[in-house]
Amino acid sequence: MAVFTYVLIMDETKLYSWFLGPKAENADLLERLILEALRDCVFWRRNFHPEDDILITEKVKREDAFQDSLALIRQEFLTLLANLKRDIPFYSPRYIGHMLGDQLLPAIAAYFAAMLHNPNNVTLEAAPITTQYELEVARQLARLMGYDGESWGHITSGGTIANFEALWVARNLKFFPIAVRDAARSLALEELPITLPTGETVNLVIADDNWLLLNLDTDETLKLRPCLHDLYAKRRTDLTQGEIEKQVNQQLAAHSISGKGIQRFFSDLGDEAVAAPLVLLPSTAHYSMQKIIEALGLGKQQIEMIPVDSHFRIDVDALSETLLRCAGERRPVMALVSVLGSTEEGAVDQIHRLVEVQVEMRKHGLTFYHHCDAAWGGYVRTLFFDKEGTPVKTPNAIREITQTWPADEVFESYSAIHRADSVTIDPHKLGYIPYPCGAIVFRHEGVKEMITTDAPYIFDGEEKRDRPFIGRYILEGSKPGAAAAACWFAHRVVPLNQSGYGLLIGKSIQSTQELCYRLGRELAPELAREGINLRILTQPPDGNIFCFVVNRVGNTSLKEMNRINQAIYDELKFNPESVIQRHNFIISSTALSFTQYGLRGPQGRGCLDEHLAALGIPSEQFSEVGSVKVLRCTVMSPWLALSSGGNPDFSAAFAAVLKHVIRSAAAVLAQ
Amino acid sequence: MAVFTYVLIMDETKLYSWFLGPKAENADLLERLILEALRDCVFWRRNFHPEDDILITEKVKREDAFQDSLALIRQEFLTLLANLKRDIPFYSPRYIGHMLGDQLLPAIAAYFAAMLHNPNNVTLEAAPITTQYELEVARQLARLMGYDGESWGHITSGGTIANFEALWVARNLKFFPIAVRDAARSLALEELPITLPTGETVNLVIADDNWLLLNLDTDETLKLRPCLHDLYAKRRTDLTQGEIEKQVNQQLAAHSISGKGIQRFFSDLGDEAVAAPLVLLPSTAHYSMQKIIEALGLGKQQIEMIPVDSHFRIDVDALSETLLRCAGERRPVMALVSVLGSTEEGAVDQIHRLVEVQVEMRKHGLTFYHHCDAAWGGYVRTLFFDKEGTPVKTPNAIREITQTWPADEVFESYSAIHRADSVTIDPHKLGYIPYPCGAIVFRHEGVKEMITTDAPYIFDGEEKRDRPFIGRYILEGSKPGAAAAACWFAHRVVPLNQSGYGLLIGKSIQSTQELCYRLGRELAPELAREGINLRILTQPPDGNIFCFVVNRVGNTSLKEMNRINQAIYDELKFNPESVIQRHNFIISSTALSFTQYGLRGPQGRGCLDEHLAALGIPSEQFSEVGSVKVLRCTVMSPWLALSSGGNPDFSAAFAAVLKHVIRSAAAVLAQ
Repeated sequence: MAVFTYVLIMDETKLYSWFLGPKAENADLLERLILEALRDCVFWRRNFHPEDDILITEKVKREDAFQDSLALIRQEFLTLLANLKRDIPFYSPRYIGHMLGDQLLPAIAAYFAAMLHNPNNVTLEAAPITTQYELEVARQLARLMGYDGESWGHITSGGTIANFEALWVARNLKFFPIAVRDAARSLALEELPITLPTGETVNLVIADDNWLLLNLDTDETLKLRPCLHDLYAKRRTDLTQGEIEKQVNQQLAAHSISGKGIQRFFSDLGDEAVAAPLVLLPSTAHYSMQKIIEALGLGKQQIEMIPVDSHFRIDVDALSETLLRCAGERRPVMALVSVLGSTEEGAVDQIHRLVEVQVEMRKHGLTFYHHCDAAWGGYVRTLFFDKEGTPVKTPNAIREITQTWPADEVFESYSAIHRADSVTIDPHKLGYIPYPCGAIVFRHEGVKEMITTDAPYIFDGEEKRDRPFIGRYILEGSKPGAAAAACWFAHRVVPLNQSGYGLLIGKSIQSTQELCYRLGRELAPELAREGINLRILTQPPDGNIFCFVVNRVGNTSLKEMNRINQAIYDELKFNPESVIQRHNFIISSTALSFTQYGLRGPQGRGCLDEHLAALGIPSEQFSEVGSVKVLRCTVMSPWLALSSGGNPDFSAAFAAVLKHVIRSAAAVLAQ
Repeated sequence: MAVFTYVLIMDETKLYSWFLGPKAENADLLERLILEALRDCVFWRRNFHPEDDILITEKVKREDAFQDSLALIRQEFLTLLANLKRDIPFYSPRYIGHMLGDQLLPAIAAYFAAMLHNPNNVTLEAAPITTQYELEVARQLARLMGYDGESWGHITSGGTIANFEALWVARNLKFFPIAVRDAARSLALEELPITLPTGETVNLVIADDNWLLLNLDTDETLKLRPCLHDLYAKRRTDLTQGEIEKQVNQQLAAHSISGKGIQRFFSDLGDEAVAAPLVLLPSTAHYSMQKIIEALGLGKQQIEMIPVDSHFRIDVDALSETLLRCAGERRPVMALVSVLGSTEEGAVDQIHRLVEVQVEMRKHGLTFYHHCDAAWGGYVRTLFFDKEGTPVKTPNAIREITQTWPADEVFESYSAIHRADSVTIDPHKLGYIPYPCGAIVFRHEGVKEMITTDAPYIFDGEEKRDRPFIGRYILEGSKPGAAAAACWFAHRVVPLNQSGYGLLIGKSIQSTQELCYRLGRELAPELAREGINLRILTQPPDGNIFCFVVNRVGNTSLKEMNRINQAIYDELKFNPESVIQRHNFIISSTALSFTQYGLRGPQGRGCLDEHLAALGIPSEQFSEVGSVKVLRCTVMSPWLALSSGGNPDFSAAFAAVLKHVIRSAAAVLAQ
């Protein structure tokens, strides 16, 4: 029926049906869906072999032991519910702390419905429905990023595992051409032509310069396996297709880093040894990148942090400089990680400019894998599709929803995301899906082969494209099919465009802008008259996160400024020892460390220089004290913008509370 | 009240209250708990700042757009529920396929209750209650394994991540003594005494023989960091405690594999290079071990598969021989992985004997990390604690529940599990907890330091033992607190001993034995009279999994035998294209590959020799054909044993169905 098409449902009030609501206003809807799911499962069970005896008889239920157990379960369940009341009210517009918010009501219902069936998405044999949902969700997310049909992706337990897989692929890809060369030699092939990023063509079989082989494009590298296969098949017409396949695979396994391991791979290179490849991270990258790089055996020392600018975005000049240095020193670069929505600041790296630099570096014979960590920002791309699902061409088409957002460069950046080799997107962040639901999408399906492990038993018979055994291609094994169902269902009722998620995220961005307006344009001038300096570090915010710092005018001590901000935070943080009803607004905080945020680009500027100067703190204090305490708001809630003029108007109310807290903190600490 | 203590609830009928039931007999209990949780959350929300406006007003709810959205959600939800009906009836006693069964009713309810709060167990700041639950669950599981208070553990998304962390720790531990030596030299220390496994004491600072350093005990290795710290503090009394700490950490980071990465760590060893260390796996190990070893950069070629015996348990002589060879060749051994409940066969490696071999190897100067993959078998340990929670001393104390199980060596093996350095246990397997819920427990809390990454922002201020930020010590980041709540609550109402899980798992083992009896003692003789050979490969089963193979008497072709078993499987597999109501019993199958199961121990015996001989298949066919198709039953359900004499008696009914299927398959294929 036409009434259910997304086009007709354009009015914003539909957003009000997507959440349980801060006062659980939609309790009846959720209860209806939950009961429907539960009873549906009950009667589904009763319809399977109805001729079988009832095992849990009414007679058994009257036994003392049964009744005692029931009483125990009920009693302890009340205790559990009581304990859970000490949880944090993420659903409230008053919670603007970490990357945590309410979940979509339909997602909760779908998670529950699928959980009752206990599907395990390791394989279609353990989850016939939800495995298909997972792959459909991955295709949707790939399209959302602008990838075409050649892409591949899946759901993970979270962003860390998604990022892990991307860098795992990047590592194995980097060294794959060397493995192919050595395999080709073992197979006695004489020629295997490859194209270098400079456009030059060389014969891989006789290429002794490993530097060249460490600098092929991703596309070129992915052609090598089929190419090796075809050439060997041509040479050995005496062998069957299966034997060709087997021998090629054996040789690749014998020479690849997957087979040899890092230690032997490099010791076998002997005189042709290469320097350990670098991984380039913005200094804003999530700390899990360090875990990942360490676990992959690459070593934390191979991380080179690229400084960010005063908007906390990668300093593109610094990146160029580093890459040119690497090209000059013949230091391989394994990967560049860009961030769309940094954890602390919500900063959006300028993907379009990074990609230009990447193209430029090809002339210098330097290539690298580009992974984009859009765990936070991925779903923001839903604003880039209009209500009919057509990509928008200009930022103005988005500003109709969000008014001032996005800045031109933020628009350009999000528009270039398809140029990355892979993207991490967390449905359990701005997809408003219950944990655990992360996702990774790769531009090329071929990367699967880079990390495949054959499993002997789960999938019966030949794998077909429509009956995939996901576990072969990913790090994890067992996975909740319920997460896939939740995400799939959410995408079905909240479309991945401006009529759905775009509307929701648009409202959260609008809420952020309102808060920044209240703090920057109203509260700051008022405090300034009282000798208090309030500075928003991310103005305008690149999305729905912002950071701010408070100082007393005249205070030049960073330690003292940190104390002031700590005191403010202490009043606005979540305190698990207190009852939740005592909390008013809840924010988060962070400490920007000198190690990461003290880095300087080629112009000699550090990202905090301008901010510290405006706050009256001499920049040398940063290195002495070691970190700057910063207050941080993450605004997942759409309600702040929608409460405008209400009681309370949450933005205004937050500004009022903050004013009071800042005054007290500044007054006490001034003594 | 005393009535709620576990001691009083001893009768087995309480087991009937733990599941929704094959016919959803306990639907009223689950519905009550679910509604209680939902409404509790509803009113919890309404009690937070009740003075705030209702945002989703009744007026808004009457808007067309809101109503249209509601209609869309309800309509699509019905579609979702319809789709889910094609899922597999894991809850039914008729499903004896993969490691999938029904979930505990209280666990479903607790998962749902906590999910409504959306806690994220990455840190206490995002999950004040469920993070504590997670750590409590980990302590319970550690105690269950026999570990003392010095242990450490946590919940993971599954067994693969748990195994990953264990081998990650093992890798970093292995090379840590070399890093400490180099750090000690940089810090200009002159002496740091260490004890070799042979009992000899040497000065680490001047130890040039890396072989010695690659063969310290786990305990000895874990002492090195504090020891280095103390010695340096003694030498540099001019420095503050903080400076000492910092310098020691810097030097360790500079010299460890974590900092350098594998490539540079080994190239820096120069002439003192060591061979790439092996990881020893039984040929029955889960395929994810290969993924893990590959991802950690160790290389699949460093896997040495140890043959198993005809019970599919590690061939202890083969292990000894391999280790002696390694000691002789100075080939380091990174880790031995043992398996309690192998995926295909449910086999239980003889931990007690492996540990003896490990101790023996110390005399040869060879040490290694021992990880036990008890993803499946971990919860079986609940049978090893009586109703008061006291460890049982003899197998007879368990046989009171399960009658014939465990065999003496299975008892000995489970009793020795605390001797392993770490254990993987999956609550979402025999813990009957919803996905995703795996767990890893380490014997020594100190191993945390081996994989720690400092996170800048999430945890505010100093970490205290009671307010931990788990994300620092583990691979994953965001994690569903709901999984921890489900597991914690299940352990609370279904105790981890013979009055709880032990009873449940005991019944599933009893069910397995009944099935084996029907197949082996009743059906097999009957079929034998018809010229059909049915052989159970795992007799008696080590737990609740068993495999069997069927052949026509006189058939000597493995290919033909595989075809027969494939045909049987085709009749008993889950077919997603068919409606579930058409399924009768559902089993799984596997293919035992020659690569893994064709390995031979020092006596020259392969694990399938005896079985193939009994089936009339010449053993050389195994290498020619490459694999043996095997039928497999995993019995998570307690109901088969409890349906004895009922309608149907499920064991008898399965035997009857199987008889029919085998006859048809054998008849058709005989033509």
